[in-house]
Amino acid sequence: MGKKLTSQSEDYSKWYNELVVKADLAENSGVRGCMVIKPYGFAIWEKMQAQLDKMFKETGHENAYFPLFIPKSYLSKEASHVEGFAKECAVVTHYRLKNAEDGSGIVVDENAKLEEELIVRPTSETIIWDTYKRWVQSYRDLPLLINQWANVVRWEMRTRLFLRTAEFLWQEGHTAHATEQEALEEAQQMMHVYAEFAEKYMGVPVIKGTKTESERFAGAEETYCIEALMQDGKALQAGTSHFLGQNFAKAFDVKFANKEGKQEYVWATSWGVSTRLMGALVMTHSDDNGLVLPPQLAPIQVVIVPIYKGLEQLDAISEKVNPLVKELRSKEISVKFDKRDTHKPGFKFNEYELKGVPVRLAIGQRDLENGTYEVARRDTLEKESVKAEAVVDKIVSLMDEIQENMFQKALNFRSEHITEVDSYDEFKKIISEKGGFVSAHWDGTVEIEDKIKDETKATIRCIPLDAKKEAGKCMVTGKPSYQRVLFAKAY
Amino acid sequence: MGKKLTSQSEDYSKWYNELVVKADLAENSGVRGCMVIKPYGFAIWEKMQAQLDKMFKETGHENAYFPLFIPKSYLSKEASHVEGFAKECAVVTHYRLKNAEDGSGIVVDENAKLEEELIVRPTSETIIWDTYKRWVQSYRDLPLLINQWANVVRWEMRTRLFLRTAEFLWQEGHTAHATEQEALEEAQQMMHVYAEFAEKYMGVPVIKGTKTESERFAGAEETYCIEALMQDGKALQAGTSHFLGQNFAKAFDVKFANKEGKQEYVWATSWGVSTRLMGALVMTHSDDNGLVLPPQLAPIQVVIVPIYKGLEQLDAISEKVNPLVKELRSKEISVKFDKRDTHKPGFKFNEYELKGVPVRLAIGQRDLENGTYEVARRDTLEKESVKAEAVVDKIVSLMDEIQENMFQKALNFRSEHITEVDSYDEFKKIISEKGGFVSAHWDGTVEIEDKIKDETKATIRCIPLDAKKEAGKCMVTGKPSYQRVLFAKAY
Repeated sequence: MGKKLTSQSEDYSKWYNELVVKADLAENSGVRGCMVIKPYGFAIWEKMQAQLDKMFKETGHENAYFPLFIPKSYLSKEASHVEGFAKECAVVTHYRLKNAEDGSGIVVDENAKLEEELIVRPTSETIIWDTYKRWVQSYRDLPLLINQWANVVRWEMRTRLFLRTAEFLWQEGHTAHATEQEALEEAQQMMHVYAEFAEKYMGVPVIKGTKTESERFAGAEETYCIEALMQDGKALQAGTSHFLGQNFAKAFDVKFANKEGKQEYVWATSWGVSTRLMGALVMTHSDDNGLVLPPQLAPIQVVIVPIYKGLEQLDAISEKVNPLVKELRSKEISVKFDKRDTHKPGFKFNEYELKGVPVRLAIGQRDLENGTYEVARRDTLEKESVKAEAVVDKIVSLMDEIQENMFQKALNFRSEHITEVDSYDEFKKIISEKGGFVSAHWDGTVEIEDKIKDETKATIRCIPLDAKKEAGKCMVTGKPSYQRVLFAKAY
Repeated sequence: MGKKLTSQSEDYSKWYNELVVKADLAENSGVRGCMVIKPYGFAIWEKMQAQLDKMFKETGHENAYFPLFIPKSYLSKEASHVEGFAKECAVVTHYRLKNAEDGSGIVVDENAKLEEELIVRPTSETIIWDTYKRWVQSYRDLPLLINQWANVVRWEMRTRLFLRTAEFLWQEGHTAHATEQEALEEAQQMMHVYAEFAEKYMGVPVIKGTKTESERFAGAEETYCIEALMQDGKALQAGTSHFLGQNFAKAFDVKFANKEGKQEYVWATSWGVSTRLMGALVMTHSDDNGLVLPPQLAPIQVVIVPIYKGLEQLDAISEKVNPLVKELRSKEISVKFDKRDTHKPGFKFNEYELKGVPVRLAIGQRDLENGTYEVARRDTLEKESVKAEAVVDKIVSLMDEIQENMFQKALNFRSEHITEVDSYDEFKKIISEKGGFVSAHWDGTVEIEDKIKDETKATIRCIPLDAKKEAGKCMVTGKPSYQRVLFAKAY
């Protein structure tokens, strides 16, 4: 286990980095900026994937797979897209290595230079729309509702596990529609799907909204997003869904014959969430003892630790515990009975606390005599003694209770960290001292958005969907504004 | 739908290429050698993945994720591995593009050259063993039983959909053990898991065996494999499992303290199957009408086609069919009720035949009056009329019957295509005329293996596990041999 975690109050960023590694979620690899997702971390990601995949299929989407490589020329076809994505990327220039003539090892074979460089996909709009061109002729071929689970690469100079890595895992949905309205509805629908997933499964409350022009996806006409608040008062963009208009259809010449036989360009959306969600999960719930995982995503929901001296006592305990394990599993609760004799109970308690297992049961000689278990909740760290015959019901209800409590706690934290301000001085004070979201009037110009960012590091996270119309004045210029937008420093 | 498929007898290779595209499994992309796996094809792959993943987990493995990129120097660390894999590969040399100074588009930024080139993984032993070095200190850390689902790239000059593509999807298991015996057992176990999957789920009979030294994985001490036979008499290697000895542990200096506190090198295995299995599935079962899918892997197991004139008839049919659909789904049978009014029944019949849907139900006015359905099996193309009240049971039993029949048919074909020969002339005749596996004596030398390959294009597919000891003479040199090996031309 090693020594204790740095505390959140001492250094939040250091706490995060240590926790991700110590709790066996991920670690840095020998390749700059690329992470290894360890089995325990990957098991959480698999649970996220399974649930999201189910929700995508329930909304009519199918999975497919498109190439890892994108020819350089494809990226240039959509003007604003290339500006956003062609810059920091991994470029494949050769297709062969050979033994060096001086025997010093292997070197790139200069005779195997590609005619056109290939870019490792930073996102797949271009290669997918090049494909859709072949798939769409008539309105009967629409809509195309397709998702892919894939790895993508964006060369990042400063990386952090899960939050910003050169390679990351994600899903990217790419849909094609006959009408603008249908594409808009699809983009909005997927924002709602993401929000439901974040809140119901991750226990992470999110604010739905749209991005300002300068924060929009490169190539989009509207970007819908869900924004979460981390414990250190910084925001994290947890998912985005883009209405792409006809931009990619025009760039790749994708037209369809409508019911009247007239040729029209296709309307598009794309939407994605990534392993970044792992970072959001950690920074919403965890504490100085380690991870706190919501039951819906915990690879192990219940751990049972026996406290015993000698094999005879362990046998007596196992006789009680084995049927309990079986019963819990029949209720689809994942249980681990940790009988290892190489580690003491105290060590195990710390380990499962660090790994965020929602419920821990302990059973010792006294419990055996009294017919009880000690039941400990990871979220509140509360312990209580529960009669053996009531323990299954207790655990079943704890699964819901913990899930709900974690969400509520995060929601309360966020409510306390949305501050309405009406002056720029107040804004600067809140941003630098309290953090969180700041709700303020803004005159709608990129210039002021940039000025605020330069002076405070805060950006407009979103224009909330549920913002009420409210006449006001831009806190910087005093120009009229008709609604508040949400600012924050962000990951 | 377009025009009919080329027939198998006319041109098997052309038939395969056409079928993969027309049945919506996959197609070539704009990137040389890289395919697009279309939704219908991907749905089959997802079913394969789900089942394999379950079997891996049942045998104690966990999933994780390792980087896409491998530093060039890593590949050189294991001498025979680099010979096998460093040659034809995608090399990342730069990490940035920029606008060309002459305004001609985007070009590689020569200032963003990597100090060390990165190779897009052709397989991940090196990056994973570089990681395991950090994970293994003591015997308590062993075994490591880890799998990853990933994309890999091997630059191929001649590519064919699923069978040989530059990028493909696969899983790669990488395990680390304290003893040679345990690693050997693991490698053998995974060969058996693959064989069970191929036979029980894909309906593809396979021969288990070991590879000769020259056909072994680069870096392995023993390669176990499963070999399948395609309808054109060529063999296809469907999965391999490698006992890697201590080669990678030595190359990456991965040692552990054993129970006595002594440092020892770790023992390794790796094993994988890929989207190549899709090719094996197609070329084992399909026919001139299209795909034939085993129920266990079919995305749609039952399709129901209504034959009607006017909405009133359709309504009457739907009233019958809707509860049937519900009942079949409750039995976890995937059903599609194709009510489209844009296509005629005959068109639909052809479409689902092409796509290999195992069971087709048709219901028209006469059936409605008689209380029957027309039930058609894709594997035998047989049709029969079944009373409505018996149709659920019929379908349930057909799922098993078709699965079993497809396997038996493939097994019979293979049995007819294993020929024992004792002279090289006979060998050449069988290989060039009949095809299939040829069982023959061989003197165990690489020279003769190469000679046979040069002269006949046949290679030793495997030394079968169940081969009985049998004194004989090498068909080429007459030198003594103690067992037969299996030759074939192969994909």
